[in-house]
Amino acid sequence: MDPIYLDYNATTPIAREAADAMVPYLYEHYGNPSSSHPYGAATRQAVERARAQVTALLGCQPGEVVFTSGGTESNNAAIKGTAWASRERNHIITSAVEHPAVMDVCRWLETQGLRITVLPVDEFGLVAPADLEKIITPDTLLVTVMHANNEVGTLQPIAELAEIAHHYGALMHTDAAQSVGKLPVNVDALGVDLLSVAGHKLYAPKGIGVLYIRDDVQLINLMHGAGHESGRRPGTENVLEIVGLGQACEIAGRDLEKNQAHFQAMRDKLHAGLVQALGEESVRLNGHPEKRLPNTLSLSFRGVKANVLLAHISQQVAASAGSACHADAVTMSAVLQAMQVPVEWGMGTVRFSVGRHTSAEEIDQAIMIVAEAVRSMASD
Amino acid sequence: MDPIYLDYNATTPIAREAADAMVPYLYEHYGNPSSSHPYGAATRQAVERARAQVTALLGCQPGEVVFTSGGTESNNAAIKGTAWASRERNHIITSAVEHPAVMDVCRWLETQGLRITVLPVDEFGLVAPADLEKIITPDTLLVTVMHANNEVGTLQPIAELAEIAHHYGALMHTDAAQSVGKLPVNVDALGVDLLSVAGHKLYAPKGIGVLYIRDDVQLINLMHGAGHESGRRPGTENVLEIVGLGQACEIAGRDLEKNQAHFQAMRDKLHAGLVQALGEESVRLNGHPEKRLPNTLSLSFRGVKANVLLAHISQQVAASAGSACHADAVTMSAVLQAMQVPVEWGMGTVRFSVGRHTSAEEIDQAIMIVAEAVRSMASD
Repeated sequence: MDPIYLDYNATTPIAREAADAMVPYLYEHYGNPSSSHPYGAATRQAVERARAQVTALLGCQPGEVVFTSGGTESNNAAIKGTAWASRERNHIITSAVEHPAVMDVCRWLETQGLRITVLPVDEFGLVAPADLEKIITPDTLLVTVMHANNEVGTLQPIAELAEIAHHYGALMHTDAAQSVGKLPVNVDALGVDLLSVAGHKLYAPKGIGVLYIRDDVQLINLMHGAGHESGRRPGTENVLEIVGLGQACEIAGRDLEKNQAHFQAMRDKLHAGLVQALGEESVRLNGHPEKRLPNTLSLSFRGVKANVLLAHISQQVAASAGSACHADAVTMSAVLQAMQVPVEWGMGTVRFSVGRHTSAEEIDQAIMIVAEAVRSMASD
Repeated sequence: MDPIYLDYNATTPIAREAADAMVPYLYEHYGNPSSSHPYGAATRQAVERARAQVTALLGCQPGEVVFTSGGTESNNAAIKGTAWASRERNHIITSAVEHPAVMDVCRWLETQGLRITVLPVDEFGLVAPADLEKIITPDTLLVTVMHANNEVGTLQPIAELAEIAHHYGALMHTDAAQSVGKLPVNVDALGVDLLSVAGHKLYAPKGIGVLYIRDDVQLINLMHGAGHESGRRPGTENVLEIVGLGQACEIAGRDLEKNQAHFQAMRDKLHAGLVQALGEESVRLNGHPEKRLPNTLSLSFRGVKANVLLAHISQQVAASAGSACHADAVTMSAVLQAMQVPVEWGMGTVRFSVGRHTSAEEIDQAIMIVAEAVRSMASD
């Protein structure tokens, strides 16, 4: 039997409807969307249909959606693109809990002469708008703060941060890889100029993403080449996965309320069950209790090494120690460090993330398996 | 009925075997290859299997293969990556017949302070190694010349150019998007340090490619983020399309001789038929008569406007006027200009490119359709 999958923040399966929508582009329609003959028209129309599906989910215009190879490319294109396009400003502000696809981009730009300031977070992983007010200057070209944290799920006050950024003439970018499909994500409500989407976090394939670029924002392209995507992203379009992403966005929008409720019910059931089984004194919740992704449960088990725990139960339950991108790391993650999680707790941190296919039966089993494993380890 | 597809250089269908290999990764296996649980192991193994299939085709080592989002990304990563990594040298040499995904990268680097020199080509589109000898200097960091031209099919003397580049301590990159799968492409035989592969030109999906990086070559990454692909290309792996590309490479290697012979037979039949139907004085071959891709036939029809011709027959035959990336352009392509094709011929240039599925019957029909259309236009 397959392990119970509680690692939906690492990646999701492709939604059945999205996969079905892709099959004709796997076996049948193959034209290059740039071709002027009928083979090209068929795939060009498919790409534009998908673009409309994305715009419906994000509340933007078709001309503001650029398809990329995923969240990492979207973040690189957004941050480097604004930095390169800015002639007069030289300062970027980010937060201490960003994904490497944002933080490492900023760190590289720092080696190229830009000034980078990192906003701290509180014990819940929250950025304070007042802190942004203190450090933003007329030299700030971009504020980039993630919408939802991948490890602990904390939701940042993006609209407030965007308002401050705009007051100082800076652009606002948010990495929404973890929030799209789990919460309403509307570019106008958030007030952002740039927003990154990662397909494989919302039941679309790996290898496809979106960069939303507000229509008045000019970037320097990350890549150069032919004039695809209205000149903003060269390279023959990934038609197969664009179709999948479009369909996944349509489903995500249609089922959003239902999914949110299901995620939260499963997450809270898992949390309550583990607390009951192990006792409140042995289980600590990381992230904000309310301002948090509905599907994400980061728990620390006192006196346990998370990677040992997960290896022990790996044939029964699949979850992550810290971020999935650092699966083999045994040090406390940068996010937990920024939140000043005490190290005796931090080392025992497991991220459980539930999804559309998570069932109450799976949660019941997972509670038993995890609780038993924690008990056996803590008593070692 | 679908038009006869003679535009395989624009893009190819996904090979049936490659599509079939992908289906389990569309519907079943979805783990993040970075995850340490069994879901991750399954897709991690699939990626490494595909990497082995790529190495077998190119004659390189697994550690030298980096999966990218396609030929454009590979070219950007190779050229920008070497330029950024080079502290002491400041000069790049390319050719006048490169794809925009090379030429526009060089032009952008020129705006960033690098010196770019463009090698001319002769009437057949060939670069002369003697010309490289004349312009290369100890300041040259990279020579980037395509293996096979996308529009006319001319094959460049890459091994000779690489020898000269290395003599001067420069790296050699080649964009092999059009040659892989049509000809033997071995990185050691070519003597290159960097080589770009575009999946969708060799019966793999659009949106996936490879950058071959010789093991002693250090680049600065185009994108920053987590440590995927041994730290050389961040972003969750596009497992679905990596599997497809691997399988497509295996098929390409297995069937290479058979395919080459078929391509050449179909191409030469089309050429002979059109010359016979229209007369030698009305048809001109572009590109080198022998040193040319076996599947590519660039013909100019005197007194005809290629885009008008192709629009006229678009329901019957699908081909390209110049490069597919400039389908709507009516000016003579940069490649034809560099080859000094007379303008009265150049405007009437159609690129026919045959493929695995091209049949002798299709060629017979295409000859009739094209010849009749050319006759009706030339007499207008």
